[in-house]
Amino acid sequence: MINVVFLGFGNVNSNLFKALHIANEVTVKQVFNRNYIKMISPFENIPFTDDISKIEEADVYIIGIPDDAISAFSESLPFQNKLIVHTSGGVSIDTLSNKNRRGIFYPLQTFSKERAVSFKTIPICIETENSQDLDLLRKLGETISENVVEISSEKRAKLHLAAVFVNNFTNYLYQIGREILKNEDLPFDLLKPLISETASKIETLSPEEAQTGPAKRNDIKTIEKHLHLLGDSPYRKFYELFTEELKHNYGKKL
Amino acid sequence: MINVVFLGFGNVNSNLFKALHIANEVTVKQVFNRNYIKMISPFENIPFTDDISKIEEADVYIIGIPDDAISAFSESLPFQNKLIVHTSGGVSIDTLSNKNRRGIFYPLQTFSKERAVSFKTIPICIETENSQDLDLLRKLGETISENVVEISSEKRAKLHLAAVFVNNFTNYLYQIGREILKNEDLPFDLLKPLISETASKIETLSPEEAQTGPAKRNDIKTIEKHLHLLGDSPYRKFYELFTEELKHNYGKKL
Repeated sequence: MINVVFLGFGNVNSNLFKALHIANEVTVKQVFNRNYIKMISPFENIPFTDDISKIEEADVYIIGIPDDAISAFSESLPFQNKLIVHTSGGVSIDTLSNKNRRGIFYPLQTFSKERAVSFKTIPICIETENSQDLDLLRKLGETISENVVEISSEKRAKLHLAAVFVNNFTNYLYQIGREILKNEDLPFDLLKPLISETASKIETLSPEEAQTGPAKRNDIKTIEKHLHLLGDSPYRKFYELFTEELKHNYGKKL
Repeated sequence: MINVVFLGFGNVNSNLFKALHIANEVTVKQVFNRNYIKMISPFENIPFTDDISKIEEADVYIIGIPDDAISAFSESLPFQNKLIVHTSGGVSIDTLSNKNRRGIFYPLQTFSKERAVSFKTIPICIETENSQDLDLLRKLGETISENVVEISSEKRAKLHLAAVFVNNFTNYLYQIGREILKNEDLPFDLLKPLISETASKIETLSPEEAQTGPAKRNDIKTIEKHLHLLGDSPYRKFYELFTEELKHNYGKKL
């Protein structure tokens, strides 16, 4: 049995908590959060504390707090030589205080409190300072995911950067699409099958193979029509940048 | 029974063909293409011609050829007063020659020859010049899709523009993600669950609600780290543009 204490209870930790709570071979011993949180059904029996001096013994402590707060918080913990991990994509393992054994337990996914996700296919990126801790994190990860991978802080930083492109920036393109339709009184629902297929396509084709559209074809007439429709919209800059880059890339390949 | 002839056999028409071929109440009478195409099993019994003078009688002629060629090709057809539709998102109904009755049959989806798609949920955008033709196109669309909508050429142009953002540009972000990982010898597969969830999220949340990430939070430290990792990469411009816009938008909303 692996005993776990959660330190912080934001989007990532609250989702991890729900998954680990029902995993075999894992016991969530306690949730700590600086501000009081009422544990609601079916979690009302999980002990909660907002007192840092009352954090219980555990095999793994999982920190899920804002990136900037990780260093000082880990330094403030009133114990040492325990395995402390954080769940952040962009923060190096060295950021954690070295008075405890340090590790990373980074689930590569986008989390919202309103939406439950299945961890089964989510890559869990782990890193530690010794092999025994690595085995423990691997075992912990495998209770919820089929995809536990050891990745260094350096590579994880690049992975997190790539995630920002395919998740945060993609979602902003969805916002732009919705806005363009809204101005025409057209429902965003019209775009949903296209969005879904665009994401599904890369399961069987590489993104290079899946690329279509006027910029790739260098279809000047359509591009000019689109720029005319955009006028001086704030989205014009995006259209120009993507179109230039796509024309440049596929032009090269011809 | 609705008799259909396909004029051109690119990505859109070959996918439409497969769907309409098996639809009840539709007969594909013929496929015309300027260059010879061998109709392979299970379509070997569908008549093919590359001779424009041998196009057969039908209720609807579906043009699926490059946008720039639609006008001249429709003018060159050796018959008149028939219902001719094209399948292009960005091309006005007026582009078709007016010697025939004109219409639009635009399936809003991304098509590749290598990948079969289900038409059931795909919006089919129709437009005609008279209500009888509209009824016929609606009936034709409903043999394959639950989502047939009448949309004017003007609104369709905006819809097509929005589609370029959520499909072509999103797919290019996937290319960037893949490239960043490739440089670290990390497999693109690591990003696939994230890409899938990013697309699925907007089924239940609006893209505004679904937005996360360092730019939205104005997390300067992470943004600076990312810019440092990008160095003078060609992707830096994308990072800066999205980040500026997200900071600006969410800053306003605070």
